[in-house]
Amino acid sequence: MPRVLPFKQVDVFTSTPFKGNPVAVTNCMDIDESEVTTEQLLAIASWTNLSETTFLFKPTEPGCDYKLRIFTPASELPFAGHPTVGSCKAFIEFTGCTKKQIVQQCGVGNIDLNVDSDGKISFKAGPTAVESVDPALLKKYEATLDVQCIEEPKLLKVGPNWLVMLVDNSETVLNIKPKLAEMAALDAANGHTGIIVGGLKKGCTTNDEYEIRALAPNEGVPEDPVCGSGTLSFIRYLNELNKYKEPKYLHISQGSVIGRDGHLYCKVDVQSGDKVDYYVGGYATSILNGTITL
Amino acid sequence: MPRVLPFKQVDVFTSTPFKGNPVAVTNCMDIDESEVTTEQLLAIASWTNLSETTFLFKPTEPGCDYKLRIFTPASELPFAGHPTVGSCKAFIEFTGCTKKQIVQQCGVGNIDLNVDSDGKISFKAGPTAVESVDPALLKKYEATLDVQCIEEPKLLKVGPNWLVMLVDNSETVLNIKPKLAEMAALDAANGHTGIIVGGLKKGCTTNDEYEIRALAPNEGVPEDPVCGSGTLSFIRYLNELNKYKEPKYLHISQGSVIGRDGHLYCKVDVQSGDKVDYYVGGYATSILNGTITL
Repeated sequence: MPRVLPFKQVDVFTSTPFKGNPVAVTNCMDIDESEVTTEQLLAIASWTNLSETTFLFKPTEPGCDYKLRIFTPASELPFAGHPTVGSCKAFIEFTGCTKKQIVQQCGVGNIDLNVDSDGKISFKAGPTAVESVDPALLKKYEATLDVQCIEEPKLLKVGPNWLVMLVDNSETVLNIKPKLAEMAALDAANGHTGIIVGGLKKGCTTNDEYEIRALAPNEGVPEDPVCGSGTLSFIRYLNELNKYKEPKYLHISQGSVIGRDGHLYCKVDVQSGDKVDYYVGGYATSILNGTITL
Repeated sequence: MPRVLPFKQVDVFTSTPFKGNPVAVTNCMDIDESEVTTEQLLAIASWTNLSETTFLFKPTEPGCDYKLRIFTPASELPFAGHPTVGSCKAFIEFTGCTKKQIVQQCGVGNIDLNVDSDGKISFKAGPTAVESVDPALLKKYEATLDVQCIEEPKLLKVGPNWLVMLVDNSETVLNIKPKLAEMAALDAANGHTGIIVGGLKKGCTTNDEYEIRALAPNEGVPEDPVCGSGTLSFIRYLNELNKYKEPKYLHISQGSVIGRDGHLYCKVDVQSGDKVDYYVGGYATSILNGTITL
C-alpha cells in the first residue's frame, strides 16, 4: 500500500508569495524513521527538483522538538539555512506548536530557533571560519564581476565556502553582469562554492541595510534567489570589518535581479567577553498544503 | 484575501513513483481566467522550479473539456507532451470525468486524448517536419557522442527541433558519455533544441522496444528524464526509416542513466491513403495532492 504523509511546500525569506526560496517539507513525525530509506528520500528530493527537500522526524535527542533531514536533488546535507527556517514553519503548522524557542536536531547538531511574535523565524548559526585569499586570485575574481571591492574580500567557511566581496553600494551590486563561465572555472579550481557580493543600500544612512547576490555557477546555481548561508557569510564578514560594539540588526535584501524579493533579518549578537552569536531569519509562508504519496 | 485553489503534482510516464517526469497542475476551472494574470502564472512556474507547470481553465471553445496553459520557469509554451498527459490525469481526478476521449484546448489548437481502460493516457500529435542535415555537421554531432549512427540522422521539427540519431542497440545508448559543452555549442549555432539518441532494446526480436536519451545542454537540461516531444520525434523518425505498413505499437524507455524509469507507449497509426497519426502516451500518478495559495 502506498503511504500518504502530510506535505507542505514553503516559501522562505519573503512576505510576497512566490518571491522567496521554496523548500518541500514532508511530515514523517507519525512514522518511524526506519520505515523510509535514504534512497527513497533522495528520490523524492530529486523529483521535487528544488534546491532542498526536507523530512521532519521525531527527535532522538532530549530537548529537541524535531529531527530534520535535508536533501538536495543529489545528496544529503548536514545543515542548510532556508530549509531550516521553512521546515520550522511547517513544523509549527503541522503540530500547532506555540513555543517561542524551538530546537532542531540535524546533521551538524542541535540548532536553536527563535520565533518572533510577528512570525519571523531565526536560527543561531554555528561557528564559522574567516580566511584570507591570495591577492592575485582576488584580482581574477574581481574581473569576473567587473567591479572593484572597497574592502579586502575574505573566504567564509560556513559549511559552503563563500568568497565574500563588498562593493560601494546596492546599485553596483544590482548592475553586475557576472562572467559565469570564468567564475565557475575559478570556483572549481579553488574549492569555492561561489561568490557573495554585497553593498550598502543606496541612501541608507544607518549602515544596516544591504543588497547581496549569491552566484554559484559551478554548483549549477548561476544565481541563488535567496541564500541563508550566503547571508550568514556576509554578516559575519561585516562584523569582521566593523567590529560592532553592541548587538547589530541587519536587513539583507536578495534576489531582485532574478525576479524574487527576498528579505533576511539578521542579528550580530555581540556579547560581553568578545562572544558573538549570529542569527539569520525571516518570514516564511506555506504555499502548497496537502499530502505526498510515497 | 489569498486565493486557495486545488493543486496536484503528477509523475508522468512511469508506474514507479518519483521515477517519471513531474508536472505541477493548478485547477483554475472554478475561477475566471481573467482573475489571474500571466505574470502571476509565470511567477508560480518559476517558483515550482519544474520543467513545466500548468493551469487548467474552463474551455472557451465548443467540444473541449478544458483549456490548458503551460509554463516553463521562463516562458509560456503553446504545447508540451508530458504536461499534457499529467494535466489530463489531474483533470480526470479533479472532476471525476469518466470519458475515454478527452479534448484539450491549448496554444497549438485542440489536442485529442485517449484514456485506456488501464488508465494510460495518450495524445495525438500535431503535424511535424523531417529535414536533412549537412553531413559535415552530423559528423561533429556524432563526435560529441563518440558513436556511429546506423542510419542517416534527421532533424525533427515537432515544436522543439530535435536531431534524432539511431545507434545499433540500447546498450550503446546507455553507455554514451556525451560531450555536453561541445553539443551545446553546436545546438546554439544551429538552432537545435538538442539530441535524441536511441537504439533497439538489446534482445528485442519484435522491433518495437527502444531505449532513448534526450540531451539538451544548451536549454539548461543536460539530460531530460522523460521527454514527450523527443519520443514523438523518435517514433516519427522510425516510421521514416521503416515505412510501417500497418499500425505499429512502440514501447520507448527513457531516463535510467539519471535514475529515472520512464516508459512511453506509442502508436504509429498507419491508415489508408498514406495518412499516419502519431500517438504518445503512458501512465501518470498524482504524488502531491492538496491546495496552492496564490
